[in-house]
Amino acid sequence: MRIVTYGAACSLDGFIADSDGGVEWLHMSRDVQAILAEYWATIDTLVWGRKTWDFAASHGGGMAESRSMRNYVFSRTLTTAPFVSGDPGAFVNDLKRQPGKGICVMSGGHLAQALFAADAIDEVGLNIHPVLLGTGVPLFRDSGKRIALERKEVKAIAGGCVYAIYRVRTSHSGTSSRATTGRGKSRARRRGE
Amino acid sequence: MRIVTYGAACSLDGFIADSDGGVEWLHMSRDVQAILAEYWATIDTLVWGRKTWDFAASHGGGMAESRSMRNYVFSRTLTTAPFVSGDPGAFVNDLKRQPGKGICVMSGGHLAQALFAADAIDEVGLNIHPVLLGTGVPLFRDSGKRIALERKEVKAIAGGCVYAIYRVRTSHSGTSSRATTGRGKSRARRRGE
Repeated sequence: MRIVTYGAACSLDGFIADSDGGVEWLHMSRDVQAILAEYWATIDTLVWGRKTWDFAASHGGGMAESRSMRNYVFSRTLTTAPFVSGDPGAFVNDLKRQPGKGICVMSGGHLAQALFAADAIDEVGLNIHPVLLGTGVPLFRDSGKRIALERKEVKAIAGGCVYAIYRVRTSHSGTSSRATTGRGKSRARRRGE
Repeated sequence: MRIVTYGAACSLDGFIADSDGGVEWLHMSRDVQAILAEYWATIDTLVWGRKTWDFAASHGGGMAESRSMRNYVFSRTLTTAPFVSGDPGAFVNDLKRQPGKGICVMSGGHLAQALFAADAIDEVGLNIHPVLLGTGVPLFRDSGKRIALERKEVKAIAGGCVYAIYRVRTSHSGTSSRATTGRGKSRARRRGE
């Protein structure tokens, strides 16, 4: 089975872009370039959320590498290649069974949320930046289940960043707090604190 | 000036407790005990959110160390010691000017949010656990400003956890995305993606 990785640069408070979509707080370094070059060599497919695709296209970043990859861009309205529609989880789980190298998920939290829910993500790779943005586009959204991870690697890299890789161990749809507890009441209580 | 630290164990998606307040996913280890013992020796004051105080009292955890500390518990309704009311930022900034050792903030995101907003927090110490909870009590809430951090230390510890310490460098109330941009429109756009 091919490995599917959800990777992103993020703030310490878990945003991949600020509330205006801005990412000028990202720190590029030789460390990051070396990590990315090594990673790109292990994959041949990119699965995109449409907004991330549009953002990359309009900013000209990261597109050079994507030209040598198979690109699939999830869209609710567009259906001609590279755009695909339908259930992202089923689509990616089907891709994983086909021969090929690794698959990288390039998206904000929404596509990743659907893929976590479908148990389609095998690894999470983060480049955690030393900043609290306060608001923005979240890295993780609630997939409806608790997901246990295994730390594969963590290291300090340039710019005060922390590079961390996790393997997805299990996702307990049957044992998540949402599935098994009096959810509405408890959430209201915590929110009211 | 005394150093004020906001420290917590959290999930990789930034929650300090699940949606029912549960923390059974926390991993205790000799690594954590050694880190905490070393840290406790540097402080003499604990500033609590009331819910965290109640939680600690009802669970019997961490209270032994607190008996040898000065404790201040913020409450909207209770005013007799150890309870205090009023503006947490002004209170803690005043505490910092008094002689003494370090000050630790023991709270969920609300008290920390007020203290970040008042530039009262000097360091952030996290024990990031290898789990995605999906929902829960957030570690960070929007303080209304972007806060630049400096990584002091990061290391892998037992249980797949990552221990990370940051120093607060600056908080740019004048340059945060909320303060300087067409916020409402942009947030609506990002939320609608």
